[in-house]
Amino acid sequence: MIPLARRLDAVRGSAIRDLLTLTARPDVLSLAGGLPAADLLPRERIATAATLALTDPANAQYSATMGVAELRGVLADHESVRAGRPVTPDQVVVTTGSQQALDLLARTLLDPGDPVVVEDPVYVGALQVLQAAGAELHPVPLDGDGMRVDVLADRLAAGLRPRLVHTVSSFHNPRGVTLAQDRRRALAELADRYGFLVVEDDPYGLLAFDGVPPRPVAAYGERVVRLGSASKVLAPALRVGWLTGPLEVCAAVERVKQLTDLCTSSLTQAIAAELLADTAWFDAHLKQVRAVTAERALAFTDAVAELLPGVECSTPTGGMFCWLAFPDGTDTAALLPRALEAGVGFVPGSAFAVGDEPRTTEARCCYASYPPETVREAVRRLASVVHTAAT
Amino acid sequence: MIPLARRLDAVRGSAIRDLLTLTARPDVLSLAGGLPAADLLPRERIATAATLALTDPANAQYSATMGVAELRGVLADHESVRAGRPVTPDQVVVTTGSQQALDLLARTLLDPGDPVVVEDPVYVGALQVLQAAGAELHPVPLDGDGMRVDVLADRLAAGLRPRLVHTVSSFHNPRGVTLAQDRRRALAELADRYGFLVVEDDPYGLLAFDGVPPRPVAAYGERVVRLGSASKVLAPALRVGWLTGPLEVCAAVERVKQLTDLCTSSLTQAIAAELLADTAWFDAHLKQVRAVTAERALAFTDAVAELLPGVECSTPTGGMFCWLAFPDGTDTAALLPRALEAGVGFVPGSAFAVGDEPRTTEARCCYASYPPETVREAVRRLASVVHTAAT
Repeated sequence: MIPLARRLDAVRGSAIRDLLTLTARPDVLSLAGGLPAADLLPRERIATAATLALTDPANAQYSATMGVAELRGVLADHESVRAGRPVTPDQVVVTTGSQQALDLLARTLLDPGDPVVVEDPVYVGALQVLQAAGAELHPVPLDGDGMRVDVLADRLAAGLRPRLVHTVSSFHNPRGVTLAQDRRRALAELADRYGFLVVEDDPYGLLAFDGVPPRPVAAYGERVVRLGSASKVLAPALRVGWLTGPLEVCAAVERVKQLTDLCTSSLTQAIAAELLADTAWFDAHLKQVRAVTAERALAFTDAVAELLPGVECSTPTGGMFCWLAFPDGTDTAALLPRALEAGVGFVPGSAFAVGDEPRTTEARCCYASYPPETVREAVRRLASVVHTAAT
Repeated sequence: MIPLARRLDAVRGSAIRDLLTLTARPDVLSLAGGLPAADLLPRERIATAATLALTDPANAQYSATMGVAELRGVLADHESVRAGRPVTPDQVVVTTGSQQALDLLARTLLDPGDPVVVEDPVYVGALQVLQAAGAELHPVPLDGDGMRVDVLADRLAAGLRPRLVHTVSSFHNPRGVTLAQDRRRALAELADRYGFLVVEDDPYGLLAFDGVPPRPVAAYGERVVRLGSASKVLAPALRVGWLTGPLEVCAAVERVKQLTDLCTSSLTQAIAAELLADTAWFDAHLKQVRAVTAERALAFTDAVAELLPGVECSTPTGGMFCWLAFPDGTDTAALLPRALEAGVGFVPGSAFAVGDEPRTTEARCCYASYPPETVREAVRRLASVVHTAAT
């Protein structure tokens, strides 16, 4: 028996996770994962970029902990456009996926017991990181316009003093909603007034179906750390994410990143830099990803409306997820094993519960991984077990 | 002002690190870094493997947190040969470089205040991880045969109960020495008797100049977690490392890795699997890396003997590092700025100090990065400032 760290007890074990491994069975259509569509991953373009990158010995070596200069330059340019004000390369830290950015921020900024505001339902990756950091979680509900910033304002007025406020601002995982612009402004103002940092977790912003990524929270104030990712717009296998924010945060994050993994792959950073800097290619690629994903989203919502009447479904305007609610009281965790038998997987709402709401009658579905007809078939399989359950 | 986590205070700030950034100046020959020789990185072979890997969509996606099955299979085979007993793929976790393996182990197994034994002088990456975990450090000295396991045995007999004992068992960073086989056996026996885990950090074992990697500590007992890395035998840019050890440790590490970065790049894992499984190529490659590195080691020690008479230098039998000691009391931290002016960099011994010894008259030099004539020129530059200092 090898004893584990007591502090690991705070990281939620996941009974659901064991079930979710079943969604990888070849006979299961999985609406569970957050996987980009395999057919849209630009593998040939990545292979060409890899071959080019490897003509330079530097791209086979260790790189600077903050990231490769070319990539940080491209990202600073992109972020400057998004934020509508200059973001310099020394305000960018490249991370091993944006999950690492979350973990590094928590390790850099939080001591055990520090209060942190999260959204309810919450992004599970953020929840795990914050639990591991020993943070004291304060959930704030979402509605159709994203985080209830008015509720947050009330809590702050009543004395809550969080170190961080985490938000998936655009095309929320798991809830599918987008934070309204007036709420973004209000959130940035609250950060200035009360001295907290907003962690604006934004892997999906560029997947706005209308081609116009929402103006970020960071456009309204400087106490914002933005997280981005190449996983949803290029390929997850690059493991390239990034954070942009105040210089002092970047410098401290660098110190923690060094002991965490020394640096992110210089090879995959060079690939990402090449692809993101090739504006003509990248714009065309994004346009295609958006169009295809929007088509799948429509196939999903149409099928739900037709085959799961009475089930409430969020209206996707970007990103990869729909949120289902079963007003008839269907227990989605109990439904999952039967859904898997019928050949379809999803994530029960309870996996994202963080506040008083147990979310037992809700579910997250990813519509992005399959072509429209397969998405429809997945909903049909789901409907078959929901209807059996109801009788 | 954004306040940082108080627990970060435990991570040693590095005045030396700022100086070391100067070793990257193009006019400086750096003996400071732990960089493999750029001319030995198999860039074309990696490019071919990347192109092949990208014909499979799975290698552009997320991978399992534990790692890609093919790679874990190859590593299990390699480790079985090294340990002389079967190591199964579920005893292997792929990590984002072996630095991440260290960090994951610390987060999985240590609570603040837990006692951990480290070698003195210590690998700086381990020191930083253990400081970040809030471990209570117990340094044990090294001699020419590696860790003084007899000293450890005395401390254990006197009541010390560490959770972990960290050792760079072969071709020590920074000290250049290798743990004797009888000490390996004794260390594994102590682990069984006192219930601690040995963390056998072994990125250099395959770089044995005689072609015979030392038999690992893990060959003598099962309370050993071995860390390996593709950085020194393939390329650092892959960011592929691994740990092998007891099943329960692997399962717990997987849980922590998931929140840390979800998974290591499936692309670079596929490349590593392809290269490590190509036995004919890999053996020939290793043979060449060993031969070239041995030649550079000899150039270094010959130059030190000739140009720095009186300076003590470890005898390299593998790996990348020599340890210098200046019996005349030369302060190596004070020497560094003047060495940089003369166009040579090294790491002062104080960077590796962890016990009572301040190591102010010692230094680490990496001989692996340059051809013999350049290694000699670097020593010549060092000698020029040492001699000036002495007059």
